Formats: sequence, structure tokens, C-alpha cells
Amino acid sequence: MKRNVLIIGAGGVAQVVAHKCAQYNDRLGDLNIASRTKAKCEAIIASVHEKNAMKVPGVFAAHAVNAMDTAEVAALIRETGCQIVINVGSSFVNMTVLEACIETGAAYMDTAIHEDPKKICETPPWYGNYEWQRRDRCKAAGVTAILGIGFDPGVVNAWARVAEEMLDKITSIDIVDINAGSHGKWFATNFDPEINFREFTGTVYSWQQGAWQENKMFEVGQVWNLPVVGDQKAYLTGHDEVHSLSARYKDADVRFWMGFGDHYINVFTVLKNLGLLSEKPVKTAEGLEVVPLKVVKAVLPDPASLAPNYTGKTCIGDVVRGLKDGKETEILIYNVADHKEAYEEVGSQGISYTAGVPPVTAAILIAEGVWDVGTMANVEEMDPKPFINLLNEMGLPSRIKDANGDRLLQF
Amino acid sequence: MKRNVLIIGAGGVAQVVAHKCAQYNDRLGDLNIASRTKAKCEAIIASVHEKNAMKVPGVFAAHAVNAMDTAEVAALIRETGCQIVINVGSSFVNMTVLEACIETGAAYMDTAIHEDPKKICETPPWYGNYEWQRRDRCKAAGVTAILGIGFDPGVVNAWARVAEEMLDKITSIDIVDINAGSHGKWFATNFDPEINFREFTGTVYSWQQGAWQENKMFEVGQVWNLPVVGDQKAYLTGHDEVHSLSARYKDADVRFWMGFGDHYINVFTVLKNLGLLSEKPVKTAEGLEVVPLKVVKAVLPDPASLAPNYTGKTCIGDVVRGLKDGKETEILIYNVADHKEAYEEVGSQGISYTAGVPPVTAAILIAEGVWDVGTMANVEEMDPKPFINLLNEMGLPSRIKDANGDRLLQF
Repeated sequence: MKRNVLIIGAGGVAQVVAHKCAQYNDRLGDLNIASRTKAKCEAIIASVHEKNAMKVPGVFAAHAVNAMDTAEVAALIRETGCQIVINVGSSFVNMTVLEACIETGAAYMDTAIHEDPKKICETPPWYGNYEWQRRDRCKAAGVTAILGIGFDPGVVNAWARVAEEMLDKITSIDIVDINAGSHGKWFATNFDPEINFREFTGTVYSWQQGAWQENKMFEVGQVWNLPVVGDQKAYLTGHDEVHSLSARYKDADVRFWMGFGDHYINVFTVLKNLGLLSEKPVKTAEGLEVVPLKVVKAVLPDPASLAPNYTGKTCIGDVVRGLKDGKETEILIYNVADHKEAYEEVGSQGISYTAGVPPVTAAILIAEGVWDVGTMANVEEMDPKPFINLLNEMGLPSRIKDANGDRLLQF
Repeated sequence: MKRNVLIIGAGGVAQVVAHKCAQYNDRLGDLNIASRTKAKCEAIIASVHEKNAMKVPGVFAAHAVNAMDTAEVAALIRETGCQIVINVGSSFVNMTVLEACIETGAAYMDTAIHEDPKKICETPPWYGNYEWQRRDRCKAAGVTAILGIGFDPGVVNAWARVAEEMLDKITSIDIVDINAGSHGKWFATNFDPEINFREFTGTVYSWQQGAWQENKMFEVGQVWNLPVVGDQKAYLTGHDEVHSLSARYKDADVRFWMGFGDHYINVFTVLKNLGLLSEKPVKTAEGLEVVPLKVVKAVLPDPASLAPNYTGKTCIGDVVRGLKDGKETEILIYNVADHKEAYEEVGSQGISYTAGVPPVTAAILIAEGVWDVGTMANVEEMDPKPFINLLNEMGLPSRIKDANGDRLLQF
């Protein structure tokens, strides 16, 4: 039984992961959290204790680590006796952390695709560039590595698998991500601005008619009507899950849609057209080399700072169309999260909450042997039922809306 | 007789100054140009020779200088035997260059107020913060120092003096600066972005009803109808000339209006609200200290690069209202410049052209003893007639429009 957990990262999602691990520490073991800045880890642990979040007495220790250094991460895994690593650090550290897990045998999870700081929007499928190249080594080492186990990617992949089991044939999967909340700032990104903007500056890849389709960001938009949040305009957007779901559902169209207001689009367009979202260094008149995107990140509000005043709700759903008994059928599987409730429970806003709960759910399933598959897997390859049932208990209920009505999804 | 000229700076305005000095080098002497980067000076001299701009054979030499270092500038003035310094470098170097002129006895000119890189929009009147504190020393040393002798400030100050001599009493001076040209880029500033944006990020000071009035940028706008460019929306803007004209015309309202399109205002508003126009350093996640405004400057097109494709015209005018023989009277004195014509003549666009011709005109007047006043002066303190007559010949004709029609202004 694997129980001891090492959390990598100390941002808004790590805060949620820490609180949720603490709330379920009777089903896990010692808890550890490590990032470049130990003080940030200590602050997170302090907030866990403030909320009396530890279900049973236990260890929760902070560490400093350079997660870009595999040997350092491996040493920390051994030193803390951790068998489960929840990597919610920057997307730049995924492969070095995964290597440490392969080396030590610990289970690995992340919530976003690996990125090379110097590259934006590599060729599809993105998982083929880094993660899947290590699949055979994970299998050989018996290492459980669950890729992209946040909300989207993550829960939305599990929902696609649920739909697969309900339908005879899937013809399209449209993942729609709407944040109808308000942070009250003139402008802010809901997670690391560097990662946020990098998502939108490249080609928008979608999988349609059996091939990769290319569009520009904000080129294709449509209004989606979703429960609670109502009519919302969303735009075809490149996103991790399209790059694994398209491999399993080759005959289906797989698209990701993200909601954006006109204000966000205007700010993004100005920054992009001026070259301020570039990951390539420029030189100032004084000769200083600097990456514009990192300066934009430096002037924007820290996403973690938004949480206390965030109000409103998010709705993320899979609209799955297909055939059932020869008839065209549409299923919506979705979750609604509330920013304020998330903040009151774990001190983070709703977007961090939806991303941070699923890997803890998965950690429990790994600890209990249910999901300890001993190889690398994307979420749609796993049995979705125990995952969705446990998510329902842990604060992220899945609902399903189809011809039979709108109800809790449970097995 | 003072004849040898040292040009400080190697940007778009310096390019115009160099070409115009060459065209009139029979009335000046040896020409010298110096900036931090000697190669930029050499490129300007090469363009002068390409156009065969030297009226008579003569010296035009390039030099490297750190204009923030008074001793270095003074040594260069002595070494080149220059008696006239045309400072069209960054606004940050004005006082070090002026000090070198006081030390060596050379005449000094600049085209914009001195600025401290660390401060934005100091208390009015701006000339009182640096320039006028050296007035007594200029007088004692017999040094001619003509402040703000570009177009605006500069020619517009001379026009105010013309109006003063035509009216019995001035009640208001509205300086209106419209660029109705097009550079064809998605966004660009017409001169150094750092100086351009610094103009608009602080309080807008105007002189009204005998006191400094404070507004925000883009708070007060109105449509002005001007010759050639027609109806144009312009906004109350802080500008150098308001800070000297208000001292001479205490009973008049003195306002400066600059034309802006909605696109410029949108880009400016996004950058300003995000904090990207700040002159105060921020620290990136990687610990690099960087001034956001300098990064914005680095990503924007080099203003000099706009010239080849710039089309359309500028119109800058003084709308002066007052009393003549007991009757309320309005006079418009204005100039229209053409971007393409400017580029064909001197290789710079119209805005650089209008800023660069006046100091050369003044240099000739100093060389010929007409304006060699041996003290510090703002332009409205000088006799405007010879200046306006010579500008008419040198490519910047002044026109006047009043009850008697629209005609060339000459004396």
C-alpha cells in the first residue's frame, strides 16, 4: 500500500491539494510539500492547520526543492518515504519530476502537459513530445503515472470514458469550460499568467474528421447554454485533453471550448499584437535581456491573491454526441463549482479547487490499490466509476443531463 | 560669430537636424554628431551624403559620447571647437549637456523638457524643476540657452508671441497637435515610446483661470476643426509649453490638446492599467529586476522604422483668443507637414521633421547673431519674426487664419 504523499508546487492548486490531502489523511499517510521557496510551503501548511483540516493527527512537512533537478527530487522522495507524488508545480518541471518517480518507483501525477519554456504550442499530439516517450519505461519500472489528472484535463477525460460506456458510438466530444465568476480586478488570469497566455498564443489544434485542424485563437466562437451559468460565448481553444482523447476516439470530433469575455480578449489581443506575450527574450535599450511574457506575469495580480474576493460559479462540461441503439443521442456531463465556497473551505478560488481536488482523489485510489496500474495512463484509460463516486464525496459532484433529465452521476 | 555645430543624439529628430544643418552649412560651420553609439551617427552622416545634402564642402564628423557625463560632453565641445550644441538626445541628458555648455560657453538648445528617469510628471511649472534653476548661471556665463525649440514646444511658443503682438490682450491659448498620418503598423509611437508614454501617464496639468488645473489623461476631449486634416478629436494633455507660456500669459488659459484615435487610447489604457507603463522596476519570478516601460519600448517598432511607409499629414496650430480694439478675436496660426515629403527630403517622417527643423533654424539665427541672447530663454521670449521668416524658407511655413482669411505668415 502506497500512502505517503509528496506535493510538488506551492501555488493556488497546491493549496487545494494540501487541504484535501489533509482532510483525507486517514486514507493517505505522511504529507509533504516542496517547492523552490520553502516559506510558501510553510504558509500552505499553516493554512491547513488554521482550518483544522487534518482529519487524523499526522505529519505535514515543508521542503525546499529545485524540481528541475531529478536527483534532488529523487533524494527528497527517498528521504520522506513518499510513494505518491502529486506534481502541481510549473508545467516546466513535469519531466524532471516524472524521471525522479521512475527512478524511485513512486506513483506520479500531474495536471497539465509538460512544457519547454523555450517553445510554444508544439506539434500534436502534445503528449507524444514528452510524456508518451516515457510510457515503456514506466511500464518496465511498474510506475503508475497518471497524466493530466486535474479538472480539464482530468475529470473531463473520465466523463468521456463514461459516455463511451453509455453510447454505442461517440461522434463528437465538446469540452466547454466557462468561468462565470468575477475577481473584481481590472484584469487578472486565474492561474499562472505565463502558462495561461502560452495556451492561447499558438495554433489552436482540434481533432475533426479524423485529422488535426488548425485555427487561430478567437477565430471560432459559439454560444453554449450550460446549467446555472446560462448562455456563454466560448472559443475553440487548444488544450491538453484533445491530444489524448483524439487517440482513443479517432472517429470522433474532439474539441475544447473556453469562455472569454470581450475585455479579456481585448487585453490579450493588445498584449499579443505588441509582442508582450512572447517567450523569446528581447533586449532593452540598456542591453538587458528579458522575456516579455515574464514581465507581464510580474505586473499582473498573483492568481492566489484573487481568491478572497472571487464570487460566482464555474461550469465545465462534456457535450458528447453519438449513437445509442441506432439513434442520435446527446449527453451533457458537468460540474458547477462556486468560488466563494472553495475559498471558505480551502483558501483558494474555484478554478484552483476544480484542478486540485481530482489528483487527491486519484491519490486515494492509488493508495487503496484501485488505480495503482503500474504504468503510464491518461485518465480516459482508467476505470472512471470509483473516481467519479469519490469525487462526488470530495466536493466535485458530477452531474449528467440527457433525455432522462438532470441528475447526480454515480455508480 | 558662432558656427561649428555639435548635434547630440542619433534618433529620428537628429536625422532631420543633421540633414538641415548640411543643407545650410554655408551659414554654419563644421558639423559634428555624437551619441552613445557612434555607428548610428555614422549612418546619419552616410544618409546626408547619399542625398548630397551638404550645400558647400565641409566637415561632418561622428563621435561616441556618454551624454550623461558633463565632462565628456565638455571635452567633445572643446575638441571639436563647437559653439552651438543642438541637443536632440533623450530628455534624460538635458541637464548634463546644458552644464557642459555653461562650462564651455557654447550655445545650448533642446526640444523637450529635462526628465529624471525615476520620476514621472513632476510638479508644475516643470521648467522650474531643472532648467530655470540654471537661468542665473547661464546669464552670468553669457551662455545662450534656448529651451524647447522643437515644434511643440518651440514654434507654437513663437506663434503665441506673434499673437501677443497682434492682440491687445490674450484670453486663451489652445495648442492643438493632430497627426492625421498613418504608419501602417498595428501600433507604434511616433517618437521614443518611453518618452511618449511618460507624457500621458501622469496628471494632465493645464493653466486655467490663473491656476494649475489637474485632470486625468483622456478625461477631457473635444473635436477641433483644423485646415487640411478637418474634424479631429483631441484630448487635454500635459505638455512642456504650457509650463512656460503660463508664466508669460498669467491671465490667459493655456491648454495643450493632442489628437488620439480610439485604437491608440485602447492600447494605452490596457498597458497603463496593467502597470506596463510603469517606470518603477518590477521583479520577475526568476528574480530579474526590470522596468516594464523599457520592455514595452523594446517590443514596439523603432519610431525611425516607420518613416519609409508613413503617409498623410500633420497639423499643429495655436488657437489664440483675445481682445483687439475691444472686440473678441480668434486667430489660428498653424503648419501642415506631410510625412512622405519629409521622408523624401531628409529620411524621417513628418513628426521628426517638424521637431528637427526649428533648432537648426535657431542655430542659424544664433550663428548670425540675431538670437545669440547670452542667457537662458524660452522661445516666446525671443523675437519671433526672423525665426518664422526663416522657417518659411526652411520647409516649415507658418500660416495664419483669422477674419482676414488664410495666408502665409511672414514679416
